[in-house]
Amino acid sequence: MTENIERLAAALEDGLIGRRRDLHRCPEAAWTEFRTASMVAAALSAAGYEVRLGQEAVRRESMLGVPSEDELTAHMERAVAQGGDPDLIASMRGGLTGVVGELRCGEGPVVALRFDMDANDLDEACDEEHRPFREGFASVNAGVMHACGHDGHVAMGLGVAELLAECKDQLHGTVRLIFQPGEEGVRGAGPMVDAGALDGVDYLLGGHIGFRAPRTGQVVCGTGGFLSTTKFDVAFTGVAAHAGAALEQGRNALLAAANAALNLHAIPRHGQGASRVTVGVLNAGQGRNVVPPNALIKAETRGETSAINDCMFERAREVVAGAAKMYGVDAVLTEVGRSVSGESDPGLAARVRRAAEAMNFFDPAEIIDRMELRGSEDFALMLAEVQGRGGLGTYLMLGSDLAAGHHNARFDFDERCLAPGAALFAACVLDLMEQPVESGS
Amino acid sequence: MTENIERLAAALEDGLIGRRRDLHRCPEAAWTEFRTASMVAAALSAAGYEVRLGQEAVRRESMLGVPSEDELTAHMERAVAQGGDPDLIASMRGGLTGVVGELRCGEGPVVALRFDMDANDLDEACDEEHRPFREGFASVNAGVMHACGHDGHVAMGLGVAELLAECKDQLHGTVRLIFQPGEEGVRGAGPMVDAGALDGVDYLLGGHIGFRAPRTGQVVCGTGGFLSTTKFDVAFTGVAAHAGAALEQGRNALLAAANAALNLHAIPRHGQGASRVTVGVLNAGQGRNVVPPNALIKAETRGETSAINDCMFERAREVVAGAAKMYGVDAVLTEVGRSVSGESDPGLAARVRRAAEAMNFFDPAEIIDRMELRGSEDFALMLAEVQGRGGLGTYLMLGSDLAAGHHNARFDFDERCLAPGAALFAACVLDLMEQPVESGS
Amino acid sequence: MTENIERLAAALEDGLIGRRRDLHRCPEAAWTEFRTASMVAAALSAAGYEVRLGQEAVRRESMLGVPSEDELTAHMERAVAQGGDPDLIASMRGGLTGVVGELRCGEGPVVALRFDMDANDLDEACDEEHRPFREGFASVNAGVMHACGHDGHVAMGLGVAELLAECKDQLHGTVRLIFQPGEEGVRGAGPMVDAGALDGVDYLLGGHIGFRAPRTGQVVCGTGGFLSTTKFDVAFTGVAAHAGAALEQGRNALLAAANAALNLHAIPRHGQGASRVTVGVLNAGQGRNVVPPNALIKAETRGETSAINDCMFERAREVVAGAAKMYGVDAVLTEVGRSVSGESDPGLAARVRRAAEAMNFFDPAEIIDRMELRGSEDFALMLAEVQGRGGLGTYLMLGSDLAAGHHNARFDFDERCLAPGAALFAACVLDLMEQPVESGS
Amino acid sequence: MTENIERLAAALEDGLIGRRRDLHRCPEAAWTEFRTASMVAAALSAAGYEVRLGQEAVRRESMLGVPSEDELTAHMERAVAQGGDPDLIASMRGGLTGVVGELRCGEGPVVALRFDMDANDLDEACDEEHRPFREGFASVNAGVMHACGHDGHVAMGLGVAELLAECKDQLHGTVRLIFQPGEEGVRGAGPMVDAGALDGVDYLLGGHIGFRAPRTGQVVCGTGGFLSTTKFDVAFTGVAAHAGAALEQGRNALLAAANAALNLHAIPRHGQGASRVTVGVLNAGQGRNVVPPNALIKAETRGETSAINDCMFERAREVVAGAAKMYGVDAVLTEVGRSVSGESDPGLAARVRRAAEAMNFFDPAEIIDRMELRGSEDFALMLAEVQGRGGLGTYLMLGSDLAAGHHNARFDFDERCLAPGAALFAACVLDLMEQPVESGS
Repeated sequence: MTENIERLAAALEDGLIGRRRDLHRCPEAAWTEFRTASMVAAALSAAGYEVRLGQEAVRRESMLGVPSEDELTAHMERAVAQGGDPDLIASMRGGLTGVVGELRCGEGPVVALRFDMDANDLDEACDEEHRPFREGFASVNAGVMHACGHDGHVAMGLGVAELLAECKDQLHGTVRLIFQPGEEGVRGAGPMVDAGALDGVDYLLGGHIGFRAPRTGQVVCGTGGFLSTTKFDVAFTGVAAHAGAALEQGRNALLAAANAALNLHAIPRHGQGASRVTVGVLNAGQGRNVVPPNALIKAETRGETSAINDCMFERAREVVAGAAKMYGVDAVLTEVGRSVSGESDPGLAARVRRAAEAMNFFDPAEIIDRMELRGSEDFALMLAEVQGRGGLGTYLMLGSDLAAGHHNARFDFDERCLAPGAALFAACVLDLMEQPVESGS
Repeated sequence: MTENIERLAAALEDGLIGRRRDLHRCPEAAWTEFRTASMVAAALSAAGYEVRLGQEAVRRESMLGVPSEDELTAHMERAVAQGGDPDLIASMRGGLTGVVGELRCGEGPVVALRFDMDANDLDEACDEEHRPFREGFASVNAGVMHACGHDGHVAMGLGVAELLAECKDQLHGTVRLIFQPGEEGVRGAGPMVDAGALDGVDYLLGGHIGFRAPRTGQVVCGTGGFLSTTKFDVAFTGVAAHAGAALEQGRNALLAAANAALNLHAIPRHGQGASRVTVGVLNAGQGRNVVPPNALIKAETRGETSAINDCMFERAREVVAGAAKMYGVDAVLTEVGRSVSGESDPGLAARVRRAAEAMNFFDPAEIIDRMELRGSEDFALMLAEVQGRGGLGTYLMLGSDLAAGHHNARFDFDERCLAPGAALFAACVLDLMEQPVESGS
Repeated sequence: MTENIERLAAALEDGLIGRRRDLHRCPEAAWTEFRTASMVAAALSAAGYEVRLGQEAVRRESMLGVPSEDELTAHMERAVAQGGDPDLIASMRGGLTGVVGELRCGEGPVVALRFDMDANDLDEACDEEHRPFREGFASVNAGVMHACGHDGHVAMGLGVAELLAECKDQLHGTVRLIFQPGEEGVRGAGPMVDAGALDGVDYLLGGHIGFRAPRTGQVVCGTGGFLSTTKFDVAFTGVAAHAGAALEQGRNALLAAANAALNLHAIPRHGQGASRVTVGVLNAGQGRNVVPPNALIKAETRGETSAINDCMFERAREVVAGAAKMYGVDAVLTEVGRSVSGESDPGLAARVRRAAEAMNFFDPAEIIDRMELRGSEDFALMLAEVQGRGGLGTYLMLGSDLAAGHHNARFDFDERCLAPGAALFAACVLDLMEQPVESGS
Repeated sequence: MTENIERLAAALEDGLIGRRRDLHRCPEAAWTEFRTASMVAAALSAAGYEVRLGQEAVRRESMLGVPSEDELTAHMERAVAQGGDPDLIASMRGGLTGVVGELRCGEGPVVALRFDMDANDLDEACDEEHRPFREGFASVNAGVMHACGHDGHVAMGLGVAELLAECKDQLHGTVRLIFQPGEEGVRGAGPMVDAGALDGVDYLLGGHIGFRAPRTGQVVCGTGGFLSTTKFDVAFTGVAAHAGAALEQGRNALLAAANAALNLHAIPRHGQGASRVTVGVLNAGQGRNVVPPNALIKAETRGETSAINDCMFERAREVVAGAAKMYGVDAVLTEVGRSVSGESDPGLAARVRRAAEAMNFFDPAEIIDRMELRGSEDFALMLAEVQGRGGLGTYLMLGSDLAAGHHNARFDFDERCLAPGAALFAACVLDLMEQPVESGS
């Protein structure tokens, strides 16, 4: 069976690479994945999957950090102009860009796979040393770039869809493929969970190209140590005044924000485990000689456990409120993303190892049981949902040679990881439908 | 004689208003006044003035805060596209946009008048309530607006040129009209002084529409209390790092800048007189979850005397260097503007009063001897140059009803101030050539 | 008459110097001037003055910054041990250490003179170069020193009392001598005003040895530019925690106080005139490895006008509240002193000049009409009270060669200023009872 | 054999308690343990141990945080007055208060035991609820208290000395008892290591009463997770100035220290493991209305590994230097203590378990293999020295009911832990001389 899958996957390779490059060329950031999602939906339908999208896939009320109506409309128009299906896109109005495809194959467990689709807010490198530019598939959308490999994730997910559709008669249970928007900024998973995308799931698998597995041929079977996190913006509003004649009439939002930034970083370390806090962006002021009436900061807290993150975020709220009070300005704090801590199930990871070992795609010496993520991923929200209902989940790292680090303008990965990745996911599904993971393992 | 001037000025009124509106529609910011300056140069030549421009009017080495070569080129192209003379503009390459026109009329004192030409970095209001929009002369150049009245200053200056050319036979001495770029940010005066624009000047007059004289018909004969000032930018450069996994590898430029901003404001008050320090703009960071490797602040110091400003700026340097050291980042401080303190000569102001009183244009009850500026103006550099060589100078406020405060997107002034202003300057010139100001007055 | 006074004063000189040295040896700080006040009261009674003390001289409810009951008791005991009258001291229980002496001499104006009595919190220099040590009259009270010359003020005031008692038959009106506690920290004047010490006063004079008149023989007839001021302490209370194991359980009062200190200094300069803010003392923490649960700051604001000071103090309250909120700690702000802005009356100062010019004590070239104080003095509260009721007041500087600056451990003054000072005050009283100051002068 | 030791220890119990109470009454802080050390030296000599003290036990050049010569002399005098041996104390001049006792019993391993002797800087509670006060053995030395149990450690160590002397004929090897000064502040271990106190040691044991074992009868056989740490003071020196008249002449040390405190806490978390930084104390300023010319902070960094602590301390140096530079003040940073990270050897801990299990003193259910310290202890320096030369070491927790937490003014422990603790150490020595720990265990 595994041999068959490997063969099928190898045959798909060129198609996967082509798909990835098309997506790379037209990257879309969080809540604007209109073209991507419409193509995913069309491909899943074509492969025989039952498709849910729009409000059936994403709960509007749970969405954080959504662009303005005008921006969303502009992105919908761009998506259509770049070849997206207008009708499908219309059903995603408001940024409801998640897609769920389901293949029901009789009695058996529900196995869900999750793939994230969004790109980064970044200008792609445009010179001959950067392969996507040299070979003509660099981003044409200004300020957006697939610099994390989610273009590969989507291609791989659609490859899995095809592989499993071809093996349909060997399946006993339900395959659910979840294509998630807005992983960057940890925004997309929550609203899909709230829309029921994980209901009834017995096994959940997800994964990432590269990252902690930076060599083609590697595979990490279970990732742990997801950091719980909260992303938030704070807008400070004061009063402008002339810096020469009437300073006392102003209310300085820049200084409130500077104090907030400084004191957020001074929130004490947590004694129970790792904690983090970062103000990544601060923009304030209108002109050199005007008391700055406006400031915006973009920040995040993290914690080894959700309790630690909650503690950090609670302190962050205090710091922001206090900094605003010090300068007599208003501060509006908006949560724009959220995820929890999490740990893959070792029993399920062991089954991934078994599947990987049965393939020629992977170097047996490079199959690793567990690795620490030391970062945040809203896959953890899905994991918590599944584990909370008694299911199991694991998050893989699929090795790939990298041209540069993730979120770098020169990021690129070795596309030879795509077919093996698709094959491994498909093999795991088949295996889990054949034989359940024993409890306690 | 005064009557004659008033009559001539009244006849010019429509032309002055038309000129002002044309300039208002095509505003140009500091060092990019290519179209404006080329029109000034052409008009002065046409009126019989000997014209100096480019390197003869502005010393390149003294220029601060100059835009990049690319930006300058783009602005030169725009200036030509909007009707500027290509040859004249070519001679201003590098941003040398100052113009000096001279009318020599035999023996007698050198009387210089200074007019500033630059616009503000601001988007103009565009709705029916704003007259320039309603009447079709709002700015067509995005992000730039004449929100301080310098369009009126240029129109008035060219009116003075015409008036004096018409009275040429009554003049005994030399008229020198100085059209200065980059007053906003106090950048333009220094390089014109260094190029010799004030050499040999016996009397210097300048002035401003509105400001401390916000009613049409008012005139302030001498302005004092110019604050000495230094404008500076600081660019901080650190090292980016992932905010979850490797914070210790980063060097946080945002926190260095936040500390600089906070501690710049904490520089102690000066015991000898008024001091000021403001950080008006702070922009830092690349993304929420990245240790910010970059930050920029725009700041200024001021002082009631130049000694106080120097003391403030010296402390500012220390604060910036210390903040950078605290965070192990580089800080590059660039001076982008500079002016000194200053005081108009009461004797010369008294002559302005005499000339104003002789006209019907002004309300005798609204002719004011002296007012405090409580701000900075690089006219003070020219004043210091002239006074340092034994000459006299004064700075007028020419009353005008204002639609909104200076530097506001809804700024507009009452154009009926233009002809009287031009007449007053011309009358002063005639008067000064007739009868010197007695020393000690 | 003046000659007579000069002669009488010269005869008193040795007594004044002896008195000053006795007081210098036993200095007493604010609200603990038990020995000093009891000696003043005794001397005034002996000279025939009607004396008010305790609750009749100081309003208890208006007192700020009063030491604890235990401290007051200890100081009362010390005062008795150092020769103070036990009965008089008992009537000052609670720190009511002000004394008013009145000499009624028929119809005529009420002329009040104010002398301050308190010493500084400072260890006096104890080496042979310091004259008070060398000649045996250095402070014997640890941590307290007459480093501002108030010992001289008291001696001078008692000299005035004697002079006027001797000239009693030439007086027409009421002499009121006010001996005030707690000038340092601007605490004593308010409660004496509230107790009615200035009721009915037509003319008020006060003065200072040295300061802006640092040479023996000088006299400044009117001092102006008193800065309005508020003195305040802030106690921050947080929660201690172990710095290794449980930082998140702490609430860091040290960091709240550090933020308060920093941001108090960053309160914007006031556009309408001079402003000041200083945190002079910060003490926080219990041990190196404990999250600091406690912090105390001692601070002050000042303003060229009382409106400016009020604005500064209002901002200070906000900064303190915000800093506490940022760190989740409590902050208790206590006002411990207060004074207003003020200006001497030129008409009254002119009379001081006349009196001084009539004496041989002063160098005519060194009699100065007016000087800026550039500091705070709660004499301004008395001045405001008198001026508010239509009276006149002035504050003198009585020149004296100084060994070191005021508030310095090596401060000492030239005692030859004492007799002339007493003579000048007495002469002014006589003069004012003879001839009123004409309004408008 | 174990039975014998238990019996002997039980017989010593009253003596150990008496010794502990005597030490509790006369506590001595770091580098001033003159009385304690002289009594230890006398007792060891009496029991037949060869004693090294003064320069033979402590390397003077390695000592950090040593009190001034005057303070040391005063403490030596107090120690003699409280019964210390004058000659022994004389040999400890300079604070060389470590003692090493050695009992050589033929061929065999060198087994070292370490006991710390110093008390805390704390006033002991003095009311009837506090047993040491009620029963008459509370501290008579103001500001010093045995609030961590080191009095018990010394008593226990001298108990071990007696027990082993009595079993001398069963010993094969060398017993070395190390009595260390200055554990609080991690000052004493380094200079004893540098003086050779650990030379040749095969097995090292140490331990603590209470702490992570807060119940009598408990024992933790191996403690790990010692945090590496650096303790440091920073003295800032600026320039005083009058806060009303001449702020610009001052150099504000308080603000430099406040900035240092704030930014020390903002040093980024280390991605490789736990880090800590705390400013526990800040004292600054002289008076409310004086620009503060002086400030002192007491701070510490910690790290899960020594590399992390080094990284934190390096950043701390930068912050301090930068804060000083910002305000133009001098900063002198002095290291006053230092320790490293460390981990007990599990093989040696297993032997402690075996010895404890063989005794009736301990509750078998309360014998714990390993616990995290989550704090710093300079035993880790000795551990590193021994492990670096191929030896083994472990750090025990000896359970004791506690009246209040360590470093609390009401701290007291259950003295019934003393005899069992002494017995356990002695039994371990005997056991280790009988049978070596096998490598790799």
